Amino acid sequence: MLITSQQAQAMIDAAQSRAQALGVPAVIAVIDGGCHLKAFQRMDGAPLGSIDIALGKARTAALFGCNSEDVWEYCKPGAPAPGLELSNGGLMTFAGGISFRSGDGAVVGAVGVSGGAVSEDQEIARAGAAAYTV
Amino acid sequence: MLITSQQAQAMIDAAQSRAQALGVPAVIAVIDGGCHLKAFQRMDGAPLGSIDIALGKARTAALFGCNSEDVWEYCKPGAPAPGLELSNGGLMTFAGGISFRSGDGAVVGAVGVSGGAVSEDQEIARAGAAAYTV
Amino acid sequence: MLITSQQAQAMIDAAQSRAQALGVPAVIAVIDGGCHLKAFQRMDGAPLGSIDIALGKARTAALFGCNSEDVWEYCKPGAPAPGLELSNGGLMTFAGGISFRSGDGAVVGAVGVSGGAVSEDQEIARAGAAAYTV
Amino acid sequence: MLITSQQAQAMIDAAQSRAQALGVPAVIAVIDGGCHLKAFQRMDGAPLGSIDIALGKARTAALFGCNSEDVWEYCKPGAPAPGLELSNGGLMTFAGGISFRSGDGAVVGAVGVSGGAVSEDQEIARAGAAAYTV
Repeated sequence: MLITSQQAQAMIDAAQSRAQALGVPAVIAVIDGGCHLKAFQRMDGAPLGSIDIALGKARTAALFGCNSEDVWEYCKPGAPAPGLELSNGGLMTFAGGISFRSGDGAVVGAVGVSGGAVSEDQEIARAGAAAYTV
Repeated sequence: MLITSQQAQAMIDAAQSRAQALGVPAVIAVIDGGCHLKAFQRMDGAPLGSIDIALGKARTAALFGCNSEDVWEYCKPGAPAPGLELSNGGLMTFAGGISFRSGDGAVVGAVGVSGGAVSEDQEIARAGAAAYTV
Repeated sequence: MLITSQQAQAMIDAAQSRAQALGVPAVIAVIDGGCHLKAFQRMDGAPLGSIDIALGKARTAALFGCNSEDVWEYCKPGAPAPGLELSNGGLMTFAGGISFRSGDGAVVGAVGVSGGAVSEDQEIARAGAAAYTV
Repeated sequence: MLITSQQAQAMIDAAQSRAQALGVPAVIAVIDGGCHLKAFQRMDGAPLGSIDIALGKARTAALFGCNSEDVWEYCKPGAPAPGLELSNGGLMTFAGGISFRSGDGAVVGAVGVSGGAVSEDQEIARAGAAAYTV
């Protein structure tokens, strides 16, 4: 199951609307289940450093089929997988990346957001993910 | 002078309309004058290999303030700069990347397109660049 | 549509049988449509340098939904896309990589082979690709 | 002493059987003593992120002739080699990578597993390593 251009743009639009409501200039990235970029928007005023972070959060979520912050539970101090965050070219293990699945359970893609506070990024990413419809 | 999100999206939309008219599923990327990604759309059916190529054409055009294929004139066999294409992490030296400038002459950004024949990519990129308005 | 482990192994086995019949120790790689490794076998005696080449041929074929050598038609001297082979982290543009598609036309994956003469690699890859069944 | 294709495949098969018994979709990689990939299988449903992790665990184990988690004892907080995990292109310092030796004591190769809980990965890797016979 492939994410369509229309679905990806709907997710970008929904995330951007939420970001505007919060007053947060954000970078929003949508990738497919194989981690290839599908749609992207950098809002005016978003830091340049957020480009790589938004892409990294989306990639982290898609690679493991979860939220980006879930990966931190495995590699934080005392957790069973120290150094996991160094795998796959470097993971972004804080909130703002959310993967989504098709009806049959396969990971179809992920949205990654960066630009505001972590909780704001997460809220914006959730708005984007909620706009995904099969 | 910075390209705005609205301008970038207008360029994506114009390029995508032309691509649809040509029946070419294309990857369309818009970057700013500093080569940082601003907006992006991968149309359904575009080859995955076109993601890197579209980004590379846009980057090549922005780095030198020209069209991507203009750089080939400097590094093609017999030209004065052999190996130039290996600089800057690798350049994409065929058509489909077009830079654009603000009223004062500064490079504001570039659009890069890949997915069809080289001449089609060029036509789609031109439609995108033409949608840039100060 | 995802390639299954069983399908991938059947392709590896078919390619390996052909390689044995030809007396060619080969590296055989099967990747999915997003270019992620699914199954792999390096036969005894295959050169270490063939690991990267087999993976590169498979990746080249999957990225563009064609055979690896088809890409050369676009970037060979005089062709319209000089430097295309520098995209996507470097392409392998000679025979031995073959992509395959599902019933709906989407690229499902690719097989890449290296170890013998180019024509032998191609024949082995064809045997592998022929073993793909939906 | 080189690991043969037959030995490597026997290790993949044994690891895969254990993974199936545990209900864990895992990535299983076998490399030789020089860290070059010999055989590989990604079971259906294993996260894409596990490809790099399984390869990294195997590489970590082969590079130091131990289990992957043993390396953590040298680079964990308070240990004498902080940053060791950043060497060699990045090490994977938790369990799931196991090296094995020939009769004369030389490191012949390593198996790396990722996909389940760390303890499950370790159990699957042990099943793979146990299938190595000279």
